[in-house]
Amino acid sequence: MAICVPKGFRVAGVHCKIKGDPAKEDLTLVVSDGPAVAAGVYTQNLVHAAPVALDRQRTPSDRIRVVVANSGNANACTGERGMRDAEQMGRLAAATCGARPDQALVLSTGIIGAFLPMQKIAQGIQSAAGKLGCDEPSLVSAARGILTTDTVHKLSGRTVSVAGGEIQITGMAKGAGMIGPNMATMLAVVLTDAALGRDTAQKLLAEAADESFNCISVDGHMSTNDTVLLVANGAAVGRPLEGEDLGALRRALGEVCGELARAIPADGEGASHLITIRVGGCASRRDARRIAKTVAESPLVKTAIAGADPNWGRIVSATGYAGVPFDPGKVNLRLNGFTLYENGAPVAFDAKAVSDSIRSRRETLIELEFGEGDAEARFWTTDLTAEYVRINADYHT
Amino acid sequence: MAICVPKGFRVAGVHCKIKGDPAKEDLTLVVSDGPAVAAGVYTQNLVHAAPVALDRQRTPSDRIRVVVANSGNANACTGERGMRDAEQMGRLAAATCGARPDQALVLSTGIIGAFLPMQKIAQGIQSAAGKLGCDEPSLVSAARGILTTDTVHKLSGRTVSVAGGEIQITGMAKGAGMIGPNMATMLAVVLTDAALGRDTAQKLLAEAADESFNCISVDGHMSTNDTVLLVANGAAVGRPLEGEDLGALRRALGEVCGELARAIPADGEGASHLITIRVGGCASRRDARRIAKTVAESPLVKTAIAGADPNWGRIVSATGYAGVPFDPGKVNLRLNGFTLYENGAPVAFDAKAVSDSIRSRRETLIELEFGEGDAEARFWTTDLTAEYVRINADYHT
Repeated sequence: MAICVPKGFRVAGVHCKIKGDPAKEDLTLVVSDGPAVAAGVYTQNLVHAAPVALDRQRTPSDRIRVVVANSGNANACTGERGMRDAEQMGRLAAATCGARPDQALVLSTGIIGAFLPMQKIAQGIQSAAGKLGCDEPSLVSAARGILTTDTVHKLSGRTVSVAGGEIQITGMAKGAGMIGPNMATMLAVVLTDAALGRDTAQKLLAEAADESFNCISVDGHMSTNDTVLLVANGAAVGRPLEGEDLGALRRALGEVCGELARAIPADGEGASHLITIRVGGCASRRDARRIAKTVAESPLVKTAIAGADPNWGRIVSATGYAGVPFDPGKVNLRLNGFTLYENGAPVAFDAKAVSDSIRSRRETLIELEFGEGDAEARFWTTDLTAEYVRINADYHT
Repeated sequence: MAICVPKGFRVAGVHCKIKGDPAKEDLTLVVSDGPAVAAGVYTQNLVHAAPVALDRQRTPSDRIRVVVANSGNANACTGERGMRDAEQMGRLAAATCGARPDQALVLSTGIIGAFLPMQKIAQGIQSAAGKLGCDEPSLVSAARGILTTDTVHKLSGRTVSVAGGEIQITGMAKGAGMIGPNMATMLAVVLTDAALGRDTAQKLLAEAADESFNCISVDGHMSTNDTVLLVANGAAVGRPLEGEDLGALRRALGEVCGELARAIPADGEGASHLITIRVGGCASRRDARRIAKTVAESPLVKTAIAGADPNWGRIVSATGYAGVPFDPGKVNLRLNGFTLYENGAPVAFDAKAVSDSIRSRRETLIELEFGEGDAEARFWTTDLTAEYVRINADYHT
């Protein structure tokens, strides 16, 4: 579980007054000593922020040198000026390491509809450039610089042995939507000192994001800014990975993205439970995912878990409107290991024991089996508490 | 706005101890003096209740005599025994007026996964048969007999002049999902003394439901029991309506269904606002509906309204993930008449005035324009309050 800065990268996080609290970093800079391959996966929202539009043009790439991110302002719904600001932010970051403007990628998260405070951003980039490091405090500061309402920073890493040496893969992420009023964004940046082809990097990242960041939901509201980047500079082993070595990196990338993704609902503001939904026995993975997502996004299921209520009716009825054909007579449901519903019919169970199992743990496991095939999916979400509503209703724009 | 029992129908609502509170009716009986045309629209949930399966087999029909409904128990997820119970419930109701068993339609709403208390149901049907009437108290009792956690009964009616006389159309409904823990069902029964062909009735009802009951959402959780019935006995004017007269009935049916549908989120437990979402300027009605539904189901939008927050970013960003292509640069948004967003960009507005307009009224109007065509849609939903969560989390199965 090695979490360290991969070779050939230097990182920093600083406070440059975008956020009011001076104890909170709000700008992160990542510099690769040499040109790196970079891949990106972005929000599918038609209404997307300027930095998303910019990075989409620039990835996949094989010459990225710098990633700059700010929190506290999303640079979304800001029109042409927003695009110019995002470009300028990238240009300033690139200049700190002598790179060309189009060698920078830019991320923003925070309030929608306000223009970036470019003077603060410029000062922040200068300040961060002077503090770049590859030690743990630098990495933690960088991970903190992208946070909005998260209560903890999110880092994950793996060391992988391959032909020719060891490679490191390390990612940072910030919380997804709903947790933060008007700051409904998930960002993640994964760095590795392995070498990857541009198309390979893009393919690996898309696969990994699909199994991780696309399998979480707090309230189903898709952000304008969601971005996941993979940057591979080849500083540890210069030859592009292939065969078993590539497989090992793929697994490590999957693990890192999985840990980061899971950490997002686990840190959902107002959430009292992290709910894992495992759906199996489906005809296709797509079917399994759709069912898992539908259950995950049902407010009735989410409030039931908040109330430690083993309400199987809400779970089973949610599966039925996922738009996936199945035989209701073959459905099985387990909650925290207790069987509540078998072959399409309720079974007797100790309601108090199940309720206690929900109440006494922060994690709840919902397992559904459909007997239609052998495809499966896993999805993570939070419960829905009165505290969530208070946070999101009491906040005023 | 005449709300009365159409000719040739008699109705009753009684308490038969399915619910604990003796002041609450829990069984409704509707009898047509002669065979009537009946059409039905049902939940699309694969996991549907026994009465839904039964009525689906029996509609459209031209010989229905009786509709029997109970609240307090949904007869859902009850397997073969549930089907036998639903059939028996219909048989008992049909027997009260000398009809054949398959001339009855059955509705249930309430707790999922428990078998119907058939002895109470039988007693209730007998009791209701002895109280059938066509006065207003009978109608109100019948409307109350289908309620679960609704705070008010829901009735709507119209009188329509046609060639040969006047016809009456009167409907009753109960609240949709989410408002009631484990009682997530919308039921509606619309009666008319007009004559309609069987296929015409089915077509008219499907159209009307599509514009009304399918345009409301409290939390997007689709019930196992949702049912809308139209029963037309021709007691006022025996000749099937056609031409302009049919058009007049269609409009009246649309109005009745619209009023009943709107009354459902208006009575959402824990809701402090009824939100109407009007989407216009779309390429198709389907597009407009999808956008309206996506905005209606965003918890971030719903909590913003609960907090009287004119948070246009949440509304605009929700439109972007509806899966409908549009040019974000042409989007316009008004909230309670105030323009917040114009041609894809925020505009200056008096935030306090908008917030006050939300806080001081129970109804909130969100209007979105897309400039892609001239199709439009209207959708109703509630806000999302801490009280909603409390109700749904604190309830224990």
